[in-house]
Amino acid sequence: MSRILRVAGAQMGPTQRADSRPATLARLEALLDSAASQGARFVVFPELAFTTFFPRWLYENDAALLENYERGMPNPAVQPLFDRAKALGVGFSIGYAELTEDGRRFNTAVLVGPDGKIMLKYRKVHLPGSVEPRPENRYQQLEKRYFEYGDMGFPVARGPAEWGGPVLGSLICNDRRWPEGWRCLGLQGVELVAIGYNSAAYDPNGGDGEDAERRTFHSTLAVQANAYFNATWAVSVAKAGVEDGAGLIGGSVIVSPNGIVVAEAKTLGDEVIVADCDFDACLQGRGPGKIFDFGFHRRPDQYRRIVEQTGMEPPV
Amino acid sequence: MSRILRVAGAQMGPTQRADSRPATLARLEALLDSAASQGARFVVFPELAFTTFFPRWLYENDAALLENYERGMPNPAVQPLFDRAKALGVGFSIGYAELTEDGRRFNTAVLVGPDGKIMLKYRKVHLPGSVEPRPENRYQQLEKRYFEYGDMGFPVARGPAEWGGPVLGSLICNDRRWPEGWRCLGLQGVELVAIGYNSAAYDPNGGDGEDAERRTFHSTLAVQANAYFNATWAVSVAKAGVEDGAGLIGGSVIVSPNGIVVAEAKTLGDEVIVADCDFDACLQGRGPGKIFDFGFHRRPDQYRRIVEQTGMEPPV
Repeated sequence: MSRILRVAGAQMGPTQRADSRPATLARLEALLDSAASQGARFVVFPELAFTTFFPRWLYENDAALLENYERGMPNPAVQPLFDRAKALGVGFSIGYAELTEDGRRFNTAVLVGPDGKIMLKYRKVHLPGSVEPRPENRYQQLEKRYFEYGDMGFPVARGPAEWGGPVLGSLICNDRRWPEGWRCLGLQGVELVAIGYNSAAYDPNGGDGEDAERRTFHSTLAVQANAYFNATWAVSVAKAGVEDGAGLIGGSVIVSPNGIVVAEAKTLGDEVIVADCDFDACLQGRGPGKIFDFGFHRRPDQYRRIVEQTGMEPPV
Repeated sequence: MSRILRVAGAQMGPTQRADSRPATLARLEALLDSAASQGARFVVFPELAFTTFFPRWLYENDAALLENYERGMPNPAVQPLFDRAKALGVGFSIGYAELTEDGRRFNTAVLVGPDGKIMLKYRKVHLPGSVEPRPENRYQQLEKRYFEYGDMGFPVARGPAEWGGPVLGSLICNDRRWPEGWRCLGLQGVELVAIGYNSAAYDPNGGDGEDAERRTFHSTLAVQANAYFNATWAVSVAKAGVEDGAGLIGGSVIVSPNGIVVAEAKTLGDEVIVADCDFDACLQGRGPGKIFDFGFHRRPDQYRRIVEQTGMEPPV
């Protein structure tokens, strides 16, 4: 059984608040078509792919806010994307704002198989930003206001036999900077991590923070290192460019279990990158007696602080 | 109070099994002098700095093996290094094979203050290699045979006021590839991690493993990423070059809390690198509300798998 799967990252350029949902869906379908025409069988889309990155705005009323959420997945508005993917025999990963039947809200991603069925749902654990807006700022980061923390841990699912049955996982945006999430996936034998993100290219309020080059470096560094530490493939995909006046980095990458960037986006627009992922290449790092043979080398009794303590507690 | 400390990494070239202890100690003192003459006030030496990397050999009798161990720290053989550092007012970190009074053996490092007193002792948690030798191989990796796993967790100590009172921690060699250890230090507010290593440049038994370039990349990637994730300075220092026919990578680095390499060794020999470490630069990453404000963003209830499971457990 071949365990080599051609995978695509479908980077999106900006989506303005004024853009219509059908126009955005048409872009997603075009990216899917492009990836499929290049032979990709699994396509990773960004975080919150159906809308602008709306947590940058303070919404005055819930009705306008809730227009950004999906009340089911799939739903009639996004069904054409699911249908197109199934017709092409291509699976995909996509991020969206989830509104549950009982009114709970999460920053969520689903992984969909080539049969159009959802294989895995993940809810973002590491929500950045704040609950309360900062009145002095034009641009906010209100993920902690608009979403609950993910409550599902870091689940994995085994992909279909026609892909070689890889173990698949998902992280969303800021999650990629937290080794804890990656390790929870690694401990379940993950072989490909699908990641979508919207990451600021600079402080849109004019502060003296880091520039796009530094932020792109951090984004790539985090994925390279955690892919290496867990001997897994990773596909990390941006929504990029200037959305409603606020810049987002691009830098979508496909990274090998050795931490090597094997494909990288060159633009800040809609752009497909592809790579052939050999899942058996994970064994170079994690096989019996290898450097990341967890069962042979990990010492969980020495790690208890990771779960028994939340914040930093420096010595006196 | 200035919190800027000039720190050195004192990379060592190879130490052959036939080299005398006094000759090695003289090299350590020369490196210390060189670092002090460049204004460094804290000097990081490699892992197992007093000997060759002896776990590459299967010892036939305990007496020969035990010549590689220190029965106290300091002890008469190494006291001149401690005296020299104290006279210079320089602190240092150094790795050695520890033999306790009751016969236990650890791969250990100590951090020594400018007053010559030990501030911190750490015992390596992530021992690579195997217990049993591989008869077909000329070169072994027998750390699991010659050492017990570290039993002290990942301790920190606060450095002296004259250094700005930085929180100091230690990791040894393979530890740097395991985010768990770094996070345990980060949760204690570590601001500088001293690391010594001996890492193979290639498979000395002629297998088709990775080359020195790839292995140096992994070494640097691990330090850059974990320094960034924990918003800490890191000084990662090799014993390098060809020891008894087996190659070791160099690539000693000083890395900022942003994950940037600010100093890097260029040789495979005895070489001092220096950098000014501003401990307040850690706040850019970890300050209140910042991206790595652990207390604000971490979700330990979602991480329990990290301590409840040792090896990989893929889904069916």
